[in-house]
Amino acid sequence: MFLRNYWYVAAMPQELENGALLGRWILDEPVLIYRTADGEVTAMRDICPHRSARLSAGERDGDTVRCLYHGLEFGPDGTCLRVPAQDGTPPNGLRVQSYPVAEKWRLIWIWMGAPELADENLIPDFHWNDDPDWFPVGDYMHLDCHYQLLADNLIDLSHEAYVHRGTIGTDAVSETPATARLDGEHVTVERIMPGCPAPPFYRKLKGYDGTIDRMHRIHFDPPATIMIESKSTPTSSAEPDDGLEYRVLCAITPESELSTHFFWAVPRNFNPERQVTEMMYQGSKAVFEEDIDVLNRQQEVLNRVATGSDWQNINSDAGSVYARRVIEKLLTTEAQAE
Amino acid sequence: MFLRNYWYVAAMPQELENGALLGRWILDEPVLIYRTADGEVTAMRDICPHRSARLSAGERDGDTVRCLYHGLEFGPDGTCLRVPAQDGTPPNGLRVQSYPVAEKWRLIWIWMGAPELADENLIPDFHWNDDPDWFPVGDYMHLDCHYQLLADNLIDLSHEAYVHRGTIGTDAVSETPATARLDGEHVTVERIMPGCPAPPFYRKLKGYDGTIDRMHRIHFDPPATIMIESKSTPTSSAEPDDGLEYRVLCAITPESELSTHFFWAVPRNFNPERQVTEMMYQGSKAVFEEDIDVLNRQQEVLNRVATGSDWQNINSDAGSVYARRVIEKLLTTEAQAE
Amino acid sequence: MFLRNYWYVAAMPQELENGALLGRWILDEPVLIYRTADGEVTAMRDICPHRSARLSAGERDGDTVRCLYHGLEFGPDGTCLRVPAQDGTPPNGLRVQSYPVAEKWRLIWIWMGAPELADENLIPDFHWNDDPDWFPVGDYMHLDCHYQLLADNLIDLSHEAYVHRGTIGTDAVSETPATARLDGEHVTVERIMPGCPAPPFYRKLKGYDGTIDRMHRIHFDPPATIMIESKSTPTSSAEPDDGLEYRVLCAITPESELSTHFFWAVPRNFNPERQVTEMMYQGSKAVFEEDIDVLNRQQEVLNRVATGSDWQNINSDAGSVYARRVIEKLLTTEAQAE
Repeated sequence: MFLRNYWYVAAMPQELENGALLGRWILDEPVLIYRTADGEVTAMRDICPHRSARLSAGERDGDTVRCLYHGLEFGPDGTCLRVPAQDGTPPNGLRVQSYPVAEKWRLIWIWMGAPELADENLIPDFHWNDDPDWFPVGDYMHLDCHYQLLADNLIDLSHEAYVHRGTIGTDAVSETPATARLDGEHVTVERIMPGCPAPPFYRKLKGYDGTIDRMHRIHFDPPATIMIESKSTPTSSAEPDDGLEYRVLCAITPESELSTHFFWAVPRNFNPERQVTEMMYQGSKAVFEEDIDVLNRQQEVLNRVATGSDWQNINSDAGSVYARRVIEKLLTTEAQAE
Repeated sequence: MFLRNYWYVAAMPQELENGALLGRWILDEPVLIYRTADGEVTAMRDICPHRSARLSAGERDGDTVRCLYHGLEFGPDGTCLRVPAQDGTPPNGLRVQSYPVAEKWRLIWIWMGAPELADENLIPDFHWNDDPDWFPVGDYMHLDCHYQLLADNLIDLSHEAYVHRGTIGTDAVSETPATARLDGEHVTVERIMPGCPAPPFYRKLKGYDGTIDRMHRIHFDPPATIMIESKSTPTSSAEPDDGLEYRVLCAITPESELSTHFFWAVPRNFNPERQVTEMMYQGSKAVFEEDIDVLNRQQEVLNRVATGSDWQNINSDAGSVYARRVIEKLLTTEAQAE
Repeated sequence: MFLRNYWYVAAMPQELENGALLGRWILDEPVLIYRTADGEVTAMRDICPHRSARLSAGERDGDTVRCLYHGLEFGPDGTCLRVPAQDGTPPNGLRVQSYPVAEKWRLIWIWMGAPELADENLIPDFHWNDDPDWFPVGDYMHLDCHYQLLADNLIDLSHEAYVHRGTIGTDAVSETPATARLDGEHVTVERIMPGCPAPPFYRKLKGYDGTIDRMHRIHFDPPATIMIESKSTPTSSAEPDDGLEYRVLCAITPESELSTHFFWAVPRNFNPERQVTEMMYQGSKAVFEEDIDVLNRQQEVLNRVATGSDWQNINSDAGSVYARRVIEKLLTTEAQAE
């Protein structure tokens, strides 16, 4: 069960280059996404209503998509424009469901719920990914686990000390209690770590060799949008230092009950140089790969034993427990509305 | 659910060479097929009734099959002939179910239903595959889809223009309406295409470089026997030309609900030369491989989304819709008869 | 369904070397097994009660195991000793279930049932595996089948003539009737084979080139402990010969309903030389690999067709039928006791 009346990230713009017909399962539905000649992005159900061939396996003829099984043609709004050897307007039953889409913050967003509710103002604020003062890196990753396992992971960063010990984790992250707050449907988790050792990746990035004052502030919004503020400054420094500050923008899109799309971006406001960008990209990717390994194995256990419902919470779970409670409540609300 | 009181092709004769014990699942039942010393083909359930080892993993001792787990021996009619270390006639419970088989038109046919109804006169007419005036090629292929997807495909050839564009398809096939007729349980679909361009494969085969008069006539009989008449002649020709005429004989045998055996033969009545035979074999095989690719992917979609029941029909589906209706009716009849 | 109040072999000692955290599924439960600094073996549920990460993917800190997702620490008895960033005694809900274990006969045994019933005197007698007069070889193997298929196989050795024809089987094994006896829950099967040809492996081992007097005596105890006495002597020999005598100790541990752990040992009382040990190891391993091949394929058939309940018994099944009856009765008893 997934929340439907929300914007989910469906693709990165570069996935739509060269006229690509991108086929992707989202909330267990097959979706075709492509960019029309005028630059607009469009999305429709990725199944020919005639005999269930995937339209993403078809071909483009301008903005028209032709199914390559029997040649039916569909416009970018899902209307069937032509049936071979058949005169007149194609019957209405051949229309393909279309989905509202939007392009914002250099990401393609899709609305899988009631189209009339799709308001672009509801798109989460990821402006750091499209701001001249911030220098972003980002990518797409695929996980073989339920999307909430990834959300849990990102809301409670205490795992950094264990999963990311060699990169961004130190004991300070796990040993410093965090404070979690629930405001309506918004969850915030904050961890202030004054005078702690710099983790290996920070030492590499900024040459920090003394202690740093480190801060994490994690923002969760349903269904699974997470924005992390991360800032570190040298505890004491002879020279002025603006610190090491970045955001981690996480758009989590369920593919199915057991698999997840993960679109991440890490914009920073320091050192715009290309080799630092490359370090940020490689470093972030390595960190997320460590998470994915843990999360896929966590899902394997859950598939095999009846746990999950009997999880024992500890203090650092406060944020993720709030987030799960929000989801549960909203799922009930959406179910009742139908 | 499968129709049982019909002849299905179980094997090609060459699969039974060198005393082979061929094990093959047919209608979700494991079947052992082999040729006895006197040349007869025999078929029985491919499971030892003792401890469920597959007899096809056993060994032959003349016409006797010995299970290679505990050594039980079975005659070609399924009777247990011997149990090691056990005197007297083996108990009747050790008998293996045997199936009526027939060898006709250079194919091995099996009857999976009530043995007393197995009448060889009911074997479909595939005489072109065993006729001195016709020069056949043929082979066996395996599909990971429900057998009716393959039947649909062969009954409605309009897909040739898309799936087989590089070989036998032209727009004439998709753009010319076909006529479909239901006579009892027999479905016929006819498509007459005068003055159309020759497809790439025909140009290669016969050197046709002008337009041709092309005709397809497809015959369907339940459960899934399809015979296609195909004839093309040059629209106008200075020299007399008998045309390019062949049959496509399709014996479709369900392996399981999600997989299918496909035995095909393409006999022609022109150019008996060996290199043309090779061209016909390679060309036909390439065309069917294009179909299999489309059909396996179609099944993947059907496995994942609840479609199929909501397929929207177009005019060219008339034949396949008739065929599915025939099957549905006959399944009800067979179920009631039990 | 598995019997729980029995000792099962969980591991071989060499699997616990170098501080290993061995994770293994037993009776469909994930189990962590390791050896503490004082040499004791300990076993607990291999799932962190916090968020279901496998503890065997964690790390050791002395005798403490640390989960490498969020850093929770557990003692060898399953008590949670520490939660990062959380003061005081960890809540009792974080305790991990621990299992009684014992090390005996150079094997690690585990008790998956009620801990208060775990009596080491109930461990099967495998003393030949730890006796200065016997020279053992042994190993661990994994099967993709229900554990009772392997028990059936070992109780009825008539299959040797077919499955192990090239190694230890001769027709004498299949053609000599065996006698089976049920004493309470203990099953004995005996086969006396005077004056029979030596099988290939025996000729290789001892140079026997005439006939031998051969004897098998198989002992079964629930749930799946099998001990085979095997002795062969030359029928007539000019020189005195103590014969070729060995035991086959089989500890069968269900991994899941469809997979099985197999711990085997073959101690002999002749020729302690190293190259004979190597021959015994390689020969035994090859024989069991032949069995595994047959048994995995047997399970594949059972997964696909509804057989098993309709197996037809022959005389040589008496022992395995007794054994299955014992299991069925004990399963009912254990179910009623709960």
